[in-house]
Order: sequence, then structure tokens, then C-alpha cells
Amino acid sequence: MKKLLHKTSLKAGKAPGTLVHIGKQRAEPIHINLIHYDPEHLNQRQLASAEECRPHRDGPGISWFDIDGVHQLDVLQDIGAAFDLHPLVLEDIVNTTHRPKVESFDNYLFMVLKMSQFDSSSASVTTEQVSLILGPDYVLSFQEQKGDVFDSVRQRLRNGKGRLRKMGADYLAYVLLDSLVDSYFAVLESLGEEIERLEEDIIARPTPDTQSRIHHFKREMILLRKAVWPLRELISGLQREESPLLSDTTGIFLRDVYDHTIQIIDTVETLRDILSGLLDLYMSSISNRMNEVMKVLTIIATIFIPLTFVAGIYGMNFEYMPELHWRWSYPLLWLGMILMAGGMFIFFKRKQWL
Amino acid sequence: MKKLLHKTSLKAGKAPGTLVHIGKQRAEPIHINLIHYDPEHLNQRQLASAEECRPHRDGPGISWFDIDGVHQLDVLQDIGAAFDLHPLVLEDIVNTTHRPKVESFDNYLFMVLKMSQFDSSSASVTTEQVSLILGPDYVLSFQEQKGDVFDSVRQRLRNGKGRLRKMGADYLAYVLLDSLVDSYFAVLESLGEEIERLEEDIIARPTPDTQSRIHHFKREMILLRKAVWPLRELISGLQREESPLLSDTTGIFLRDVYDHTIQIIDTVETLRDILSGLLDLYMSSISNRMNEVMKVLTIIATIFIPLTFVAGIYGMNFEYMPELHWRWSYPLLWLGMILMAGGMFIFFKRKQWL
Amino acid sequence: MKKLLHKTSLKAGKAPGTLVHIGKQRAEPIHINLIHYDPEHLNQRQLASAEECRPHRDGPGISWFDIDGVHQLDVLQDIGAAFDLHPLVLEDIVNTTHRPKVESFDNYLFMVLKMSQFDSSSASVTTEQVSLILGPDYVLSFQEQKGDVFDSVRQRLRNGKGRLRKMGADYLAYVLLDSLVDSYFAVLESLGEEIERLEEDIIARPTPDTQSRIHHFKREMILLRKAVWPLRELISGLQREESPLLSDTTGIFLRDVYDHTIQIIDTVETLRDILSGLLDLYMSSISNRMNEVMKVLTIIATIFIPLTFVAGIYGMNFEYMPELHWRWSYPLLWLGMILMAGGMFIFFKRKQWL
Amino acid sequence: MKKLLHKTSLKAGKAPGTLVHIGKQRAEPIHINLIHYDPEHLNQRQLASAEECRPHRDGPGISWFDIDGVHQLDVLQDIGAAFDLHPLVLEDIVNTTHRPKVESFDNYLFMVLKMSQFDSSSASVTTEQVSLILGPDYVLSFQEQKGDVFDSVRQRLRNGKGRLRKMGADYLAYVLLDSLVDSYFAVLESLGEEIERLEEDIIARPTPDTQSRIHHFKREMILLRKAVWPLRELISGLQREESPLLSDTTGIFLRDVYDHTIQIIDTVETLRDILSGLLDLYMSSISNRMNEVMKVLTIIATIFIPLTFVAGIYGMNFEYMPELHWRWSYPLLWLGMILMAGGMFIFFKRKQWL
Amino acid sequence: MKKLLHKTSLKAGKAPGTLVHIGKQRAEPIHINLIHYDPEHLNQRQLASAEECRPHRDGPGISWFDIDGVHQLDVLQDIGAAFDLHPLVLEDIVNTTHRPKVESFDNYLFMVLKMSQFDSSSASVTTEQVSLILGPDYVLSFQEQKGDVFDSVRQRLRNGKGRLRKMGADYLAYVLLDSLVDSYFAVLESLGEEIERLEEDIIARPTPDTQSRIHHFKREMILLRKAVWPLRELISGLQREESPLLSDTTGIFLRDVYDHTIQIIDTVETLRDILSGLLDLYMSSISNRMNEVMKVLTIIATIFIPLTFVAGIYGMNFEYMPELHWRWSYPLLWLGMILMAGGMFIFFKRKQWL
Ligand SMILES: [Mg+2]
Ligand SMILES: [Mg+2]
Ligand SMILES: [Mg+2]
Ligand SMILES: [Mg+2]
Ligand SMILES: [Mg+2]
Ligand SMILES: [Mg+2]
Ligand SMILES: [Mg+2]
Ligand SMILES: [Mg+2]
Ligand SMILES: [Mg+2]
Ligand SMILES: [Mg+2]
Ligand SMILES: [Mg+2]
Ligand SMILES: [Mg+2]
Ligand SMILES: [Mg+2]
Ligand SMILES: [Mg+2]
Ligand SMILES: [Mg+2]
Ligand SMILES: [Mg+2]
Ligand SMILES: [Mg+2]
Ligand SMILES: [Mg+2]
Ligand SMILES: [Mg+2]
Ligand SMILES: [Mg+2]
Ligand SMILES: [Mg+2]
Ligand SMILES: [Mg+2]
Ligand SMILES: [Mg+2]
Ligand SMILES: [Mg+2]
Ligand SMILES: [Mg+2]
Ligand SMILES: [Mg+2]
Ligand SMILES: [Mg+2]
Ligand SMILES: [Mg+2]
Ligand SMILES: [Mg+2]
Ligand SMILES: [Mg+2]
Ligand SMILES: [Mg+2]
Repeated sequence: MKKLLHKTSLKAGKAPGTLVHIGKQRAEPIHINLIHYDPEHLNQRQLASAEECRPHRDGPGISWFDIDGVHQLDVLQDIGAAFDLHPLVLEDIVNTTHRPKVESFDNYLFMVLKMSQFDSSSASVTTEQVSLILGPDYVLSFQEQKGDVFDSVRQRLRNGKGRLRKMGADYLAYVLLDSLVDSYFAVLESLGEEIERLEEDIIARPTPDTQSRIHHFKREMILLRKAVWPLRELISGLQREESPLLSDTTGIFLRDVYDHTIQIIDTVETLRDILSGLLDLYMSSISNRMNEVMKVLTIIATIFIPLTFVAGIYGMNFEYMPELHWRWSYPLLWLGMILMAGGMFIFFKRKQWL
Repeated sequence: MKKLLHKTSLKAGKAPGTLVHIGKQRAEPIHINLIHYDPEHLNQRQLASAEECRPHRDGPGISWFDIDGVHQLDVLQDIGAAFDLHPLVLEDIVNTTHRPKVESFDNYLFMVLKMSQFDSSSASVTTEQVSLILGPDYVLSFQEQKGDVFDSVRQRLRNGKGRLRKMGADYLAYVLLDSLVDSYFAVLESLGEEIERLEEDIIARPTPDTQSRIHHFKREMILLRKAVWPLRELISGLQREESPLLSDTTGIFLRDVYDHTIQIIDTVETLRDILSGLLDLYMSSISNRMNEVMKVLTIIATIFIPLTFVAGIYGMNFEYMPELHWRWSYPLLWLGMILMAGGMFIFFKRKQWL
Repeated sequence: MKKLLHKTSLKAGKAPGTLVHIGKQRAEPIHINLIHYDPEHLNQRQLASAEECRPHRDGPGISWFDIDGVHQLDVLQDIGAAFDLHPLVLEDIVNTTHRPKVESFDNYLFMVLKMSQFDSSSASVTTEQVSLILGPDYVLSFQEQKGDVFDSVRQRLRNGKGRLRKMGADYLAYVLLDSLVDSYFAVLESLGEEIERLEEDIIARPTPDTQSRIHHFKREMILLRKAVWPLRELISGLQREESPLLSDTTGIFLRDVYDHTIQIIDTVETLRDILSGLLDLYMSSISNRMNEVMKVLTIIATIFIPLTFVAGIYGMNFEYMPELHWRWSYPLLWLGMILMAGGMFIFFKRKQWL
Repeated sequence: MKKLLHKTSLKAGKAPGTLVHIGKQRAEPIHINLIHYDPEHLNQRQLASAEECRPHRDGPGISWFDIDGVHQLDVLQDIGAAFDLHPLVLEDIVNTTHRPKVESFDNYLFMVLKMSQFDSSSASVTTEQVSLILGPDYVLSFQEQKGDVFDSVRQRLRNGKGRLRKMGADYLAYVLLDSLVDSYFAVLESLGEEIERLEEDIIARPTPDTQSRIHHFKREMILLRKAVWPLRELISGLQREESPLLSDTTGIFLRDVYDHTIQIIDTVETLRDILSGLLDLYMSSISNRMNEVMKVLTIIATIFIPLTFVAGIYGMNFEYMPELHWRWSYPLLWLGMILMAGGMFIFFKRKQWL
Repeated sequence: MKKLLHKTSLKAGKAPGTLVHIGKQRAEPIHINLIHYDPEHLNQRQLASAEECRPHRDGPGISWFDIDGVHQLDVLQDIGAAFDLHPLVLEDIVNTTHRPKVESFDNYLFMVLKMSQFDSSSASVTTEQVSLILGPDYVLSFQEQKGDVFDSVRQRLRNGKGRLRKMGADYLAYVLLDSLVDSYFAVLESLGEEIERLEEDIIARPTPDTQSRIHHFKREMILLRKAVWPLRELISGLQREESPLLSDTTGIFLRDVYDHTIQIIDTVETLRDILSGLLDLYMSSISNRMNEVMKVLTIIATIFIPLTFVAGIYGMNFEYMPELHWRWSYPLLWLGMILMAGGMFIFFKRKQWL
């Protein structure tokens, strides 16, 4: 089962701005990838060190510094120095359990986001933290490890068609944000399919393991919800931001991505409601089956226990039991017992237990 | 069972403004119907292509372009070009899973809405997305397929009586909005009747399938609610909009349709509360019937098990059992057993189990 | 059981302002009663037609047009013409399922309200819609049928004592509003008594019909709540209204009636909480009684089933069963069985089942 | 059980400002106690009539008119006349079921409050309504009967130490308010102790009466909550009030009493949450005990019913049953039966039912 | 079990500003520790009396008066005099049950906070109240007893590296606040681990004590929540405070600590949701096991009770029972009984009870 909480407490007592990596420790080094472009040219390469960022930081052209890994604190420190980042910003970037948010600084906007994927083997959601820094002519993106949802963005940059190459760094940041937000749709569709499968199973035939499946998805929804709700605040925060870093044209696109977050939140809440209904359905189905079991027991016992008593009576060894010696006792008894059983049967039929 | 979610994830990674049709694929081509009118004349015909829209776009007279189908992306693209629609608007029109909303652009207002119908065979609600664009002298309406709730509007236009022909495009848009909102009343009444029927069934005699019916309607209400709540925002958004496209006269009519959305939301919440009460009623009714079953079992077993034990005693084959040889043993035993059974009966009467 | 919903859908597709009566159809004609008064005189009579309203519409003196019935659409149309009412106002008056609200027009204020009564035979709440129109020198009141809570107002008008005759039409409207709001106190007290009676029954001895009584009152509370919450908005809407129709003196009285609506809402929510507690109490009481039933069964079965087995052993017909021939077998067996039963008894005593 | 609702409906139809006493009728007459003080002198005596209030109403010195009883409407009327109180204020004072509130008039502030006590014999909360009127140089306090939480205030006034004698009427009003609010702490502590006792009982051994105790405290909390939440509004209303009657110095003390109301509300909500957890604990404990009962029954029945069947087989009287005549049948059967019972025992051990 | 409530009622009736210590009584005297520093020097020592505070109260340099214990009211009174604290502030400091809050006075800011620790032996959270007073050049901190989370702050002060020694008293106050807030992360991680352990136990094999563990953690979360929610208000209150005591630089750090409180609140709510899911899981698991028990009983009883009846029949002692004398009766009966049992077995297999 996924861990509920991470070792955020490692930071307790450290001076503010002290870098402490919170998250999965990784072996491979941090890679800094640069895509530098303007409407006519595009140049893509890997930088050897944070120092190499400086020449591309301020125009001409737009630079996207795409950084894989936040676990080498010295590299992060160097990047922070190259871009004059506030120590509290660096601290948040290396804390991969941070809540999504946007913060405005003098020369840049800082965003923390979560990138989501559905792991169908464990039927659970995995999350990776992505931090974005939007400067006048550059975008910095930090992720926990190589592999993301930005490949289509890279493709569109290389194609050079459409709006992307012609517009500023803020549009690039928006496009990355939009890709991240879109990643939730796929996750929610997979979760929705699993939940529908669960629904069908409960209606058909609930098994004892059904209850842990319901619990598993409720838990996934609780954790997903925690990642998704702050997105809304984040994007409406961006929309309210009166920063010279954000052009008016980008504003209309932020309204579009805001729509998407609302749709995602709506869907998360809908799935939660459905799941809570599934629990009710499961519980009433257990009760119904208990009822069925008890009815079988009661019918059998109610029919045969009195009959057995009657048989017991005539199994007694008293010397003076006149019935034992009558000629028609035995057939009459059978008749009586059949009538009794029939009466019971009609009684249960009336009560609609049969 | 209705699908919870649609393939919105198809759009992931596409450039913003890329048209991707999300919804049911359809075979028949898109139809563009034009109703052009002023207080004196009305002209109704089908246009062959998007290009033919242009001459009617700007006055004189009001034009309603009523488009059936959003699945042919090239046609949509042409319409977008003819009316200078923003690519993000077109993108939302072809995504039939969009959340209801209103957005203001320089020359037009854009609305996404849901049109509802109750399908009594499956006792469920079907929804079709309708998008409206209100320009200075035209209204564009997009729906997923032919067949809608606007026939009475067309009729009133042709009649030429009343306010409709004399007023501007904003009043036409309001009338379409009002028709859509009215479509929810019929849906809610059908749902309400089904839920009342369910209520009567639970009070009379709940069956195991009752629980899936409760679940089904809870699910319908969750989905309906998701379509209905944004309506309120949409209409109060329209009311706050200080657009030259909306006249003051239309404002008073928007207040009326706002009333209706509040009433619809109220009713949805009431039905949800009733359904949640029905689940409680069903569960306590199951428990009550379990109690009844257990009482029958307990009464029968409690009366006959001890008697059977007594009969068993005198069925033993010990050589030295003096009672077996007494004259009055057998009748006395019967007497004892009848007294025991009578005592039990009084005990259960006292406990009010009988 | 009371209908959840009414045929509001009849209006679908009608032009806005089209009159459609929604509510119970009635046979008797609409009556228009006029009370015309000033501090010195009072004149009360029934008007023959809407046309007769006109001379009394504008001062001098205050006129209360008290109209019983909204089912004759032509009469309503005439009244609307006589007072220059907006078609949307008339439409709302004849729709007796409208939500309480207040709306301001150029020359009048329009209010929709619900008048409540408790029907003790069915232990349920009946509601009648009352619409009020406050003009500069007149008040129009519409109700569904003769019979209301305004008799004391008529009495106070005739008495001529107190403030009522000396003040304007706004004070008359306030007094009517206050009477309507007061009608909820009686309804809530009756409901409260019924719920207390139910509470006592559940504590004493719940019966299977208890669950439908709980459900019935939950349903009544859901419907009542829907009528009561909008009252608050309505009255605070009136308080915020900066209309020349409302004098400052009346403002202080509106604050008083606002207090009452808060108290009513508080009470409705309290009763809902109590009812929800009653359901919990009922469910745990069912479980407790099930426990009791099961204990009786278990005790009886646990004591006698093993004893019956022992008796069965010595009822076997094996040739070689030495115990059968011993002298003291039978009395010893009795001793053993009594000890077994006693042991069980102590075991159950220890478990506190007895 | 405490009544949920009082006869507020007695007022229906009365003119606004008509005095109707709602509450417990009492025999003893209303007493008017006066404490007149300035930093140097204090004078305490009982006034014979409302008329005697007039000379002390306006300075010099501060006058506290402390009135026990609101059931004699003529006395209240006289007091109202002596202090120029609005009829609606008097109406609220004699309605002892009023919701706590503050209202500002031209020359005075009017507050309605609830004074609470815990009655340990019935483990329930009793409430008495206290109304305060703060004028420029006087405070009027009304309570339902003699006996209150103000004795320490009277003591501090007589002592003459501290701030109280030196400050204005607003500080006296604050001190009374503070005493009333403090009375809730004692009530909540007693309730908290009762609830902790209940919690211990449920963990140790729930009894059938536990459920009515849980219900009783839930009910008490619902009623207490209704009295406590409006306090917050009341005091923040006072803080926002820009009345010349309230000095700045008193403002800082109001902030203190506001803290207390927040703490009280917090505690009420905490106790409600705990109680709701106790219900869950109780229900799961009932289920657990049902499980235990059923296991005992199942183990006994499952072991002995098959054995009894076997014994029954060899109790049959067929002529041709070879086993009956074998030498070792009986001991072998015992062996078989012991093995069967042992097998069952191991089966139940494995299932962890034993 | 932890006490729900403390004796706050001791204060009832006392004059505002009267010091009453509410909390655990302690034996050791109050210690006043002073750390006086500027960028170049640091001086740390224990003061003998409150009087010794005065010389260090106003610059040069920053003074941190770190006071262990609030139970000696005379010492507190002296400290209050030395720093001109308002009596209501002192009253709140000695009331260790106060709700977290911030209040602004002319010359200082006053904060009440809770410091948390997880006690793993009892799996519960312990809390200690910390009050902070921020003056222009000093910080006063009060805690209930020696031992806190500030050791790392003292260490950083002594080191003299970083920002801390160079900045003002407001930065010191922020650093203390940050340390306190960080203490909740460790507590939540411990609670999270316990709750995950509980979750695993319920999925593996719930025991009767599971229910009290769930209840215990729900209770802990209720109490923790009460301490944590006001933190958010407190810090956003500080952020809005336009006090000359708070520099702009510190503002950016408050935004950071605000992030942490949001994360803490999010986590508390997540754990509450998980716990509420665990209760559902536990209840459905109890029901499932009850079902299993009942099935075993029903299968055994349903198979053997009819067979025992049949055996009983042929154990009867009637003279005229022809079957008793037939040659193949006994083997045929066995065959019949085996077929009956087999039929039952197939029936239960079909019903999927086996
Ligand atoms: Mg930190
Ligand atoms: Mg991550
Ligand atoms: Mg997107
Ligand atoms: Mg996460
Ligand atoms: Mg869009
Ligand atoms: Mg539920
Ligand atoms: Mg997109
Ligand atoms: Mg659709
Ligand atoms: Mg409509
Ligand atoms: Mg939908
Ligand atoms: Mg209307
Ligand atoms: Mg419920
Ligand atoms: Mg309409
Ligand atoms: Mg109604
Ligand atoms: Mg009605
Ligand atoms: Mg009233
Ligand atoms: Mg009043
Ligand atoms: Mg509950
Ligand atoms: Mg009144
Ligand atoms: Mg009360
Ligand atoms: Mg009272
Ligand atoms: Mg106090
Ligand atoms: Mg205080
Ligand atoms: Mg529950
Ligand atoms: Mg105090
Ligand atoms: Mg403490
Ligand atoms: Mg921190
Ligand atoms: Mg605490
Ligand atoms: Mg941070
Ligand atoms: Mg619960
Ligand atoms: Mg639940």
C-alpha cells in the first residue's frame, strides 16, 4: 500500500532556506536539458553544469531549462545561484511532498505542481512533483526523474508550426501547465473504469475482497483529491496575478486550463460520491445475503425440529404407550407429519420467504 | 449502465485550440439550418456550406444558425473561420463532455450547456451538449445531433406573434437558454415519479433488487447534479456581464431563468435527500425482517429442543429406569411437555415476540 | 404520501410570460376582496371584476386587494392589466410551485411566499402559495383558495387601534408577511410534538412501523426546509432594498420578522438533527433486540443440544453397551446432565448473557 | 425529557409589539433591584415600582437595574415606559425562547442571551434567558427568576477594588456578558465528564441503556449548540458596532470575551464529534458481541448435531443392522465420535473462532 | 485516556485580568533564560528575577527572554510589569488551555501557540502551550515547563552563521514560530504510521480491540485538529498585520510557514478521511465474518437436521412398521441419506456458500 506520509519532519529545526531533499533517493545524476528557440531557430542540447545556464538566461530567444532530478543539493544550489532564486524557492523544489502553489517574486513566478500517472498493475495513482519557474525569457522546469508528459511539447517546439515558437516564455509555461493538467484526465479515466468494474462486480456477486477494493479506491481518491484541489487555486492565482511576466494573450489560455481543473475536480468529487454509494450497495448486499442464509436455516429447522420431536416421542420406551400398539399409528403419524410440513411450507410461502 | 467518463484524455498533448471530437461518433453529415428574420419577414432554409453563413452574419435582420452535429472537424473549422471564432471556442464546442460555462469574447458571448431528456425504458437521464454563440445580429447553436427542445421556439418565430420577432439576437439566445433550462423540469418530474414509486415499493415490500434501484437513482442524481449546478453560475455570470450584446430588457428575463435554475437545483438536492432517506429505510427494513426470521427460528427451536431432549431421555435403553414401568408416566410426560411449551409461549408473549 | 413534484414541465416551450396555472385545479371562481382604509375610515367589500380595482389603485387611503384563487387565467390577466404588472410576475403568481423570492420593479415590489399548516390527521404539512405586490398605496395579495392566516390582520384593521391604520401600504405588507412567518411556528410546534412522541415510542418499544414514521418526518422536514430557507434571503433582500416604497419605520419591523425566520430555520435544523439521531437510536435498538433473540436461542441450544446427544447415545441399540446394564447408570447420567447444564449456566452468567 | 419547543405560536396574529409571555409561568412577583454606584459610593436597594427607576436612569453615577422575572406584563410595560424602550424590545424580553442577538437603537443597545447551568441529577443543561439593555448611564438586566451567575459581579461592585467601579455602564454590561459566557465553561466541563464516563462504559461493557444515554447527550448538544453559536455573532456584532455607548477601552475586553465564545463553540463541536464516534464504537461493539454469540451457537451446534445424527442412526430399530451385533461397535463409535469432535475443534481453532 | 476538557471554569466570576493558572501544577520554580545578541556578540544566562529583564528590554541588540513555567503567578505579574503587558495578556498566558491566536497591542504582538509531541508508548499526542510576545527589540517566550523544540534555534544563534543573528526580533519570532509548526510534521508522521499499521491489521485480521484503536485515533485527530486549524488563521492574521514590528523581509518567510500550516491541515484532514474509511472497512469486515459463521451453522444444520429426523423415524417403537422388517431397509436408508446430503452439498455449491 502507498505510504500516506513522507519524512517532511527531516526539515524540523533547520534554518529556513536550508536544502533538504525529501523524496525517493536516486542514483543517476541530475541532467540539465536546454531547448533554446526563436521563431526561426531551435537548438537542443544537454548542459554540463549549472554554470552553463547563465549565457542563455536572458534573451535573445526563449530558453527552456528542463532539469531531471532534484536530489543533488549542490547542483540545485548552483542553479539557484545562476538564476538568483530565493533560498525558500530552492527549499520547496527539493521537497517533493510540497503542496501545489504559485508564488510571485520580483523577477520570476514560481509554481509547484504534481504530474500524475495511473499504474494499472497496482490500480493506483503515482505522482511526481514538477516545479516551474517562469522568468522574462526563460522557463525552468524541475522534475524528480527522467520521463514526463512533455514529449508532445518538445515535438511541437521542434515542428515549429503553430503558435508556440512565436510566443514568449509565458506561453511555454502555460503549455507545460496544460500538459500537466491534461495528465489527470487519463488518470481519472482509468480510475473511472476500475470503479465501474468494481460496481459491476458488486451488483453481480460481491466477494469479501470487494471491501478492500472499495477501501483502496477511496484511499486513492483521498490522495488524488489532495493533489487536485490546490490546482484550482493555483491557476486562478495565476489569472489574478498582475505580473508583467504574463501577457494578455496567455490570459485567455489560462482561462481554458482553469476550465480543465474545474472539470477534473468535478470528476474527482463524482467518483468519490460513486464510491461512497458503492460502499452502501456492498453493505446492503451483505445484509441481504445474510438474510437469505438465515432464511434457509430457519425454514429447515422450523420444519424438521418439531417433526424430530414427534419421532422422539414414539421412540420412548414406556411400557404403557397405547399408540405403539395400534394398527394405523404409523401411517397416521406420517400423514400428520406431512400435513405439519405442508402447513409450514404454506406459512413460509405466505411470508414470502420461499 | 451509463459510462461515468469519456475519453477526454485523447486531447492530452495536443496544442491548445486543436480540434478533437470527444463524444459519440456519428455517420450523417452536419446540417446548417438558417432562420433569418425581422419583425416583418422570416426565411428558413438549409445552408450548403459554412461559406454561405457569411452574407447573413451581420444584419440587417437577425440570423439563427442552427447546426446539427459537431463531429466533422473541417466543417467546424470553416464555421469558425466564417464567424472569427477563437480556436479555444471551437475546441470546446467539439468536446461534448465540457462543463456548462459562459465566456465573453470581444465580439460574441460563448455558452456551453446541456440539454436533458429522461429515457423511461432505462429510467435514466440522457444529455446532449448544446453550445450557443451570441453575436451582435446572430445566434449560432451547436448540438450533437438532430432533435432538440427548440421546436416551440421555431414555431413562435414562424408565428411572428409575441415579443420574439421584434427583439434582438440576445432575446433569441435567452429564449433558447430558457427552453434548455425548462427541459430539466420534465426530467426531474420523471425522476421524482420513479423515486416515489421506489419509495412505495420499499414501504410495501423491499426486494433484493431494490438496492440496485436505489443505487441507480443515486448515480443518476450525482451525474445530473454535475450538469445542473454550473447552470446557476452560468446564468448569474450572464447577469453580471456588462456586455453591449445584452440589452437591459433581456436582463429582466435572465432573472426569470435564474429563478428556474435555483428551483432545479433545489429539486435535485431534495431528491438526493429523499434517496438517502430511502437507503436508510431500506436498511432498517432489512434488519427488521432479519429480526422476524430469527424470532421464528428462536421460538421454534426454544420450544422443541428441550422437549426433544426429554423425549430422548425416555428413549434410552437403560435396564434400570423405573419411570419406564410406571402406569401414568406417559400421560404425565405429555402433561409436563404441554406445560413447558405453554410456559415458553407465555414467555415469548411477554417479550412481545409473538 | 405527498407528491414530491408538480407539473412545472407544462410550461416548457411556452413563451416567457405565458400564463400557465400550475397547482390544484379548483371549481369556485376567483374572489377579489377590497379593504380600503385611512386612519378614520374603513371600507370592506367584494369587487365584481378586475376593472373595479382601478379607481382604488392610487390613493387617497390604502387599498388591500385580497384575491382568493389564481386558477382563472383571464381574471389574472385583467388584474395584471389594471396594475401594470410585468407578464413574468403574473406567470410566477399562477405557478403555485414557485420558490419564495422578492423582486423589485419600477413601481412595485413582488414577493412569493408559502403559507403553512399542519394537518394532524396525516401528521403532515400543507402549503399554500401567497404572492404579495406592494405598490405606493396598495397591496395585492394572491392565494390559492379562500382561508388563510390573515384574519387577525383584518380584525386589527377593523378595530382601528394600534399602528396599522395610521401607516402606509408597506406596513400592511409587513404585517401580512409577519403573519405568514408566524404560521410556521405553529407548524413546527406540532411537528416537534409528533417527533417527541416518536422519540418516546422508540425509547419505550420500537415497532416495525416506527421506521416509516421516521422516514415520513424526515421527508416532511426536507420539504419544509425547502420552503423555509428562502424566507431568510427574501427578508434580508427586503432589508437591503433601497426602495422608496419601504419607509424607515418599517425597516425596524423587518428586522423583527428576520429574527423570526432565523428562529424558524434554527428549529427546522434542530428537528432534522433530532430525527437523524432517532434513526440511529432505532437502528441500535433493532440490533440490541436481535442480540437478545440470538442469546435466547444460543443459550437454549447450547444447553440442550449436547444433552440430547448424550440421551441419543444411550438410546442406541448396540448389543454390547455395558453401561445399559449397570444399576446406577440412569441416576448418574441425570447427575452428569444436571452438572453440564449448571456449568453452561455459570458460563453464560460469566459472559453476562443472563 | 426536555421539551424541544415552546409555545411561540401563541404570538401568531398579534400586532407587532404586543406583549405575550412565552415561558414558564411563575407565582412570585417581579423584583426590581437597583445598584447605584460611582467610584466613591455604592447604594443597593429594591425598588417598589417601575416608576422609581426614573430618577436613577440618567446620571450622575451608574445604575444597574437588575430585574427578576418577566412574567408580569404590566410591570414590563411600566419599565418600558420609564426607559422609552421600543415595543419590539419588550416583546422580545418576555419571549424567553428568543435566539441570542444584539440590536442597536438610538439611545441604547439591546442584547438577548442565555444563561446555562448543568443539572447533574438529570445530566442535562437548563437555560434561562437574560436580556440586557445598555444605556448611557444605566444597565437593565432581565432574567426569568431569582438566582443567577452575577453574584461575583455584585461582590466586586461592593468591594470597590479593581476597574469596575471606576468605569462606565458599558464596562458593567461587558462584565455581565463575560459572567454569562463563563457559565458555559462549567456546563461544558460537566458534560465532558459525563461523556468521558459514557466512553469508558462503552469500552468496558455497553448495556442496552447505553444507546439512550448517547442519544440523550446528542440531544443536549444539539440544543446547547443552538444557544452557543449565536453568541459569536452577538459579540462580533458588538465589536463592529460603532456606538457612542461603547468606549474603546471596553473594546479590548470584548475581544477577550470573543475568544471565550470561540473556545466554547470549539468545545461544543469537539464533544459532538466525540459523541458521534461513541455511537460508531457502540454499534461496532454490538456487532462484535453478536458475532461472539453466534460463534458459540455455531460451535456447539456444529459439533453436536452430526454426533446426534450418528447416535440416531444406531437408535433405529431395523431388524437387519449388522453393526448392532458386532462386539466393538460401541467403543469404535465413541472413538469415531471423539475424532469427529476433535476435527471440528481443530477446524474452529484454524478459523480462529476459539 | 486523555482528558477532554480542563478546569477553565475556575475563572468564572473572576474580574477580567485576574491571573488564574489553568493547567498541570508543577513543583520547580519558573526559570527566566536570556539570550542577548547582535551580529558580533552573544550572551546567554539565567536571570534571577523579572526585575533583571528591564535593562535588556530595549536595545541595543536583540533579547530573547525564554521563560520555563507559567505556574507562579507572582513571577508572571512581575514580568508583566517589566514589559508593560496588558492584564488580559497575562491572563491568557497562564491559561494553558487557550486557543491559538494572535493579538496586536500598541507596543507588541501577542501570540498563543501549541507545541506538539507524539508519545509512542500511549500512541497519543501531547501538547504544551507556548506564548510569544514580540516587542521592538525583544521576544518573550513562555512555555509550561523546560524542554522544547527550540534547541536548534539556540544552536543557530550560538553559531552565528546564516541570517538569524543579523536580523531583528521579528525574524527571531518567525524562527520560533517555524520550529513550532515543524513540530507537527513529526507528530503527523507518527500518527500516519500508526494508522497505516491499523489499516494493515484490519485488512489482515480485525480483532475486537481494533474498534477501540480506531476510536482512539479518531479522538486524537479531533483534538489535534482543534489545535491545528487556528494556526492558519494565526499566520494569515500575522501576514495581514500592518505592524511596524514586522519587516517586509520577514513577510516572505511568513508565507513559507503559512504553506506549512496548510500542508499540516491537509494532512490532518486526510488522516481523518482515512480513519473514517477504516471504520467502514472494519464494520463490513465484521459483517462478512458474521456471514461466514452463519453459513457454517446453516450448512451443518441443514444437512444433519433432516437426516436426524429420518433416523428418528426408524427409532420409533410402533408395533406395525413394515420397513423395520425388510431386508434392505437399512442399506437403502443409508443410500437415501447420502443422496440427500449430496443434494444439499450441490445446492450450497450452487449458491456459492462453499
Ligand atoms: Mg523551514
Ligand atoms: Mg512525487
Ligand atoms: Mg488542457
Ligand atoms: Mg500525493
Ligand atoms: Mg477549453
Ligand atoms: Mg449513507
Ligand atoms: Mg488543451
Ligand atoms: Mg452529450
Ligand atoms: Mg423557463
Ligand atoms: Mg453528463
Ligand atoms: Mg418566473
Ligand atoms: Mg443516515
Ligand atoms: Mg418561461
Ligand atoms: Mg412545498
Ligand atoms: Mg401550495
Ligand atoms: Mg412574527
Ligand atoms: Mg422580536
Ligand atoms: Mg449518524
Ligand atoms: Mg410579531
Ligand atoms: Mg434553549
Ligand atoms: Mg429559559
Ligand atoms: Mg470570560
Ligand atoms: Mg483572554
Ligand atoms: Mg455510521
Ligand atoms: Mg474573564
Ligand atoms: Mg499543554
Ligand atoms: Mg517550517
Ligand atoms: Mg489541546
Ligand atoms: Mg517552503
Ligand atoms: Mg461515521
Ligand atoms: Mg460512510
